[in-house]
Amino acid sequence: MSYTMPEFLAHAIAMEREAAERYLELADMMEAHNNLEVAALFRDMVRYSNLHGDSIVERAAGLELPTLKSWQYRWVAPTEVGDEDAFDYTMTPWQALEYARENEGRAMNFYRTVSETSTDPTIKPLAMEFATEEADHMMALDKMISQTQRP
Amino acid sequence: MSYTMPEFLAHAIAMEREAAERYLELADMMEAHNNLEVAALFRDMVRYSNLHGDSIVERAAGLELPTLKSWQYRWVAPTEVGDEDAFDYTMTPWQALEYARENEGRAMNFYRTVSETSTDPTIKPLAMEFATEEADHMMALDKMISQTQRP
Repeated sequence: MSYTMPEFLAHAIAMEREAAERYLELADMMEAHNNLEVAALFRDMVRYSNLHGDSIVERAAGLELPTLKSWQYRWVAPTEVGDEDAFDYTMTPWQALEYARENEGRAMNFYRTVSETSTDPTIKPLAMEFATEEADHMMALDKMISQTQRP
Repeated sequence: MSYTMPEFLAHAIAMEREAAERYLELADMMEAHNNLEVAALFRDMVRYSNLHGDSIVERAAGLELPTLKSWQYRWVAPTEVGDEDAFDYTMTPWQALEYARENEGRAMNFYRTVSETSTDPTIKPLAMEFATEEADHMMALDKMISQTQRP
């Protein structure tokens, strides 16, 4: 898994955009549950993801980025959702938080692995910086999970 | 899993749109592999999915459809793609066909289950009709898989 800078940035941008979209869905859903505290956390994460995505787009200015396939950066489905009942599922706040945490964990592992395996001295510290940001998001989610009733 | 007609049509439209997008990605990828035969099959499936989606949109005219969450109709990731190497994966034609087949199978099962469990006499036959279409797609994929070299 050795990326060029354009490949790495393309993944990072796609991941931030996907995260922003999913957090927006989760925020809307939590409002439907009338859990405004968890909704507010997800709205904050929409904002962070968009800001981070925008800053990576700026950094990528002038580079030609490769086009990625959707499955190269997608969030996984909620683990509670089986194949058969994936279609009429309503998440509780706890499940939404766990779902977000799982995907943040995937993103963090991705960045960390890139940082550890990259031989490019400009990618290494950048990937580590992104991994640290994801770790911060995971901590915020963990804090909220500890305050949320498990279903 | 008992849907109202608007819920059922919203799922069906979302599934057709998602399928069209994924088939387009797969077709592009197969052209990059220079496998024009498999690319042509996927382009046909883009067209069928769009046509079917359009016809369902027509049928839904005048109904207010619910908004679905992305994970309620998403294709699953290719099974060959693990968490760690999901990011620099290149599919062979055989893997692309298997991936498409798996997702067609999920769609077929979804429609069949709706048809079997629905108590609405207008939804039952419609869901069975859609299940039959997906079965046709699976047969086309199976035929191509049998002619494609396994990696």
